[in-house]
Amino acid sequence: MREPRRLDEIAVLVGGVLAGDGSVLVTGVAGLREAGPGDLTFAAGPRNLPDLEKTRASAAIVPMEVEAFSIPVIRVENPYFALAKVLGVMYDRPRGPGFVSDRAVLGRGVRLGRDAQIHPHVFVGDETEIGDRAVLYPGVYVGERCYVGNDAVLYPNATLREDVSVGARAIIHAGAVLGADGFGFVEEAGRHRKIPQIGRVVIEDDVEIGANVCIDRATLGKTVVRRGTKIDNLVQIAHNVTIGEDCLIVAQVGISGSVEIGNRVTLAGQAGVAGHLKIGDRAIVGAQSGVTKSIPADSRVTGFPPVPHGEWLRAQASIPKIPEMRKRIAELEERVRVLERALGKE
Amino acid sequence: MREPRRLDEIAVLVGGVLAGDGSVLVTGVAGLREAGPGDLTFAAGPRNLPDLEKTRASAAIVPMEVEAFSIPVIRVENPYFALAKVLGVMYDRPRGPGFVSDRAVLGRGVRLGRDAQIHPHVFVGDETEIGDRAVLYPGVYVGERCYVGNDAVLYPNATLREDVSVGARAIIHAGAVLGADGFGFVEEAGRHRKIPQIGRVVIEDDVEIGANVCIDRATLGKTVVRRGTKIDNLVQIAHNVTIGEDCLIVAQVGISGSVEIGNRVTLAGQAGVAGHLKIGDRAIVGAQSGVTKSIPADSRVTGFPPVPHGEWLRAQASIPKIPEMRKRIAELEERVRVLERALGKE
Amino acid sequence: MREPRRLDEIAVLVGGVLAGDGSVLVTGVAGLREAGPGDLTFAAGPRNLPDLEKTRASAAIVPMEVEAFSIPVIRVENPYFALAKVLGVMYDRPRGPGFVSDRAVLGRGVRLGRDAQIHPHVFVGDETEIGDRAVLYPGVYVGERCYVGNDAVLYPNATLREDVSVGARAIIHAGAVLGADGFGFVEEAGRHRKIPQIGRVVIEDDVEIGANVCIDRATLGKTVVRRGTKIDNLVQIAHNVTIGEDCLIVAQVGISGSVEIGNRVTLAGQAGVAGHLKIGDRAIVGAQSGVTKSIPADSRVTGFPPVPHGEWLRAQASIPKIPEMRKRIAELEERVRVLERALGKE
Repeated sequence: MREPRRLDEIAVLVGGVLAGDGSVLVTGVAGLREAGPGDLTFAAGPRNLPDLEKTRASAAIVPMEVEAFSIPVIRVENPYFALAKVLGVMYDRPRGPGFVSDRAVLGRGVRLGRDAQIHPHVFVGDETEIGDRAVLYPGVYVGERCYVGNDAVLYPNATLREDVSVGARAIIHAGAVLGADGFGFVEEAGRHRKIPQIGRVVIEDDVEIGANVCIDRATLGKTVVRRGTKIDNLVQIAHNVTIGEDCLIVAQVGISGSVEIGNRVTLAGQAGVAGHLKIGDRAIVGAQSGVTKSIPADSRVTGFPPVPHGEWLRAQASIPKIPEMRKRIAELEERVRVLERALGKE
Repeated sequence: MREPRRLDEIAVLVGGVLAGDGSVLVTGVAGLREAGPGDLTFAAGPRNLPDLEKTRASAAIVPMEVEAFSIPVIRVENPYFALAKVLGVMYDRPRGPGFVSDRAVLGRGVRLGRDAQIHPHVFVGDETEIGDRAVLYPGVYVGERCYVGNDAVLYPNATLREDVSVGARAIIHAGAVLGADGFGFVEEAGRHRKIPQIGRVVIEDDVEIGANVCIDRATLGKTVVRRGTKIDNLVQIAHNVTIGEDCLIVAQVGISGSVEIGNRVTLAGQAGVAGHLKIGDRAIVGAQSGVTKSIPADSRVTGFPPVPHGEWLRAQASIPKIPEMRKRIAELEERVRVLERALGKE
Repeated sequence: MREPRRLDEIAVLVGGVLAGDGSVLVTGVAGLREAGPGDLTFAAGPRNLPDLEKTRASAAIVPMEVEAFSIPVIRVENPYFALAKVLGVMYDRPRGPGFVSDRAVLGRGVRLGRDAQIHPHVFVGDETEIGDRAVLYPGVYVGERCYVGNDAVLYPNATLREDVSVGARAIIHAGAVLGADGFGFVEEAGRHRKIPQIGRVVIEDDVEIGANVCIDRATLGKTVVRRGTKIDNLVQIAHNVTIGEDCLIVAQVGISGSVEIGNRVTLAGQAGVAGHLKIGDRAIVGAQSGVTKSIPADSRVTGFPPVPHGEWLRAQASIPKIPEMRKRIAELEERVRVLERALGKE
């Protein structure tokens, strides 16, 4: 936290409508249950209103439908957007000056940008370039011939193998592994012979990659994640995959080799995509889906194999009815048999 | 291993019934297939009896239904419980005195408990407190303002980002990441704008967290895992989740944001839980389930969406019957058409 | 890349049929889209032919059915096999001489093989043996009494806990954790009491283990992965599992405790296997399957519970038809009721 702000200032910042005393001084932002005096708190929607009633916060950001309240509130169209703005201003952590720890190891020909922070136990390989103000936390490994963009942050114990490139403002969370060998083998006399994986990984600007994510290097060429895409924890991205711009890839998704994903695609949690498929722009793939054929743009699918989401919902809801359906079919068969017998049709 | 024990002593320790020579000296504990002379071995149930016939062990812990045997045995109600007790006594590793490696880096204002062990290549951030006898293995990163309880163990390359708290006797396995940013974005002009994640992670006493698990920090407030809960490897726990006491979360489970899980809940392997849901005390969610609605206490559900486990089993077993059911329906339609025609009902 | 090669030399190397000018000098290997003059490129099959038309490469490896082309080509039966051979020859990285970084920490009684490379920030525990030419990248942790075979490679931030053995030429990718405690508890007065996990992990020769994979140590005895098996990223292998020779375990698979897997088995992505089951030699388990019963040798199954793959495909395709089937059943019931009434059978 930097310095206290008046509530009316914050209302202007987020473009919201102030209801109540605008002179309240806000010293922090906190959750509904944890907030105390001086805190601004946050209600995303109707489900948070019971907690809002009980909060000890001094003020709150609320959705527009909340008219007034016992504490001063800022009413906004999109509470999450307002929250992002407030936190960005009030919790912006100044990075401080650059440094290179004497416990870090830098290879030959490493170029370091201005004010880069190289923490202890970092290893940077030969001929690698680290951008201005980039931060490499303890335990980070960056191999040879890598590029880390300006203002990128590599959290502890992240690994970038050789020939990996990470764009400006990219965030690589702890334990992520970029550039491990793709899973490529060819059979030879009943054994699996490794196909050397000599390609690269290219992560563009403003990409965020979750903790313990794995993005494999290409066999040849490159595995690519384009600008602005956000990847949650424990996601697997195989060799030669291309992911477009501004996608959301939720936790534990697995994407097989050479898949091509368009822009603004959403893959919900634990979904899997089989190899060499294409997923069109703006497609939404439901949680735990198993994608076994290409998905056109603008579609919303779920299931394994995936079908339109509404159809999937109806079908899933009907699965528990199958045993009863079988019984009804058997009964019908008996009743028809009786009728046929009566009519001498048997 | 510490020192040899007589079998009759061990029988008393585990509250079991000795059958055979109690004077046998036990020098170690080993699996049925690996055990040799001097070893005590272990049969969990009937499926292990063929291996028990062939074991070279000098004695065995067996379930009560095994009456007697060619080698001395200790008969017990719960073989796993007896095993836990024996191993706890015979393989208790004394931790030795505390130390701080000169290859570790400690920030300003770090408070170290008595006999804490700080291995090489550990980093501890400013203002963090490490409890008595806590062990931080090589490559562990603990950020600023963290708390690590007494007797906690952080295995190699585990990462605790800033403001993470871990209780007494907690075990954090290798590669686990606590406190990475929650996956929170808000759309702005077609792009995903990051919502800063300024909350914390609180892990209570006696929690065990598996290798490469990810537990994200809260947006505001805290992500909580309560006393005694055990989490297996590669589990994803999103921001603002609360998990109650004494739960079992099996490998590769994914829990979305703001989910509230009660006490003594079991989530079986690879299950997923959608955001903002509640799972009641003692509920059991089957493997690979996709939880899309809240689950009441004491229920046992499976599937996506989940249904009572027995119903799910029947339904799944019936899915392969659908093609045949469709055929039978088509036949019935034809037979009814014939009947209708015969009766002039068409 | 080592040195340029003539195309006709490479044709001989891969046992292919040269079509075009064999005197072309190849200076590198690159993907169809990235290749430039001097590069040899690679078309795996018909789906790559459009890209092949546009490539700027000087030559290409192509499947036998491609007769001739605008650039010189080497026609082969198995393009992946040819690629593996070419890359193996042209991109073989000489390992260089051994070294032990003065930023690494070696315990008492460590035996180091000839030309082993011990990078900075590596920790090797007491009484561990590291084989000839083995490479331990930065951040690797190897506990006490481990064995790392000749020519094995441990990538950055991989963790081998105590008593783990890794065979010759094994490759352990970044962030993998071998030997974390198995997930074993026994209930005691409503709480989960830990069963100490004192067993080992044994990885045989020529095994490859993906990034962030977890292989737990056995409770007693050992968790085993046999010769030549390849494991993709983010796989979970629980305590006391045995995996046979030459298996392929695809990303995000989860294998529960004490499962026994035969030789040459394939588990496709995100599949799960319940505890204590057996999977026979050469069995193939489809993606996202939930294996709840043992699988015989040579079978190909999919689903949860798994059924023969063809049956599963038909059944899945029919699930979306269930709502329509229910409608047809209801209609049939009504029509039969009408008929019954007409015949006075009601």
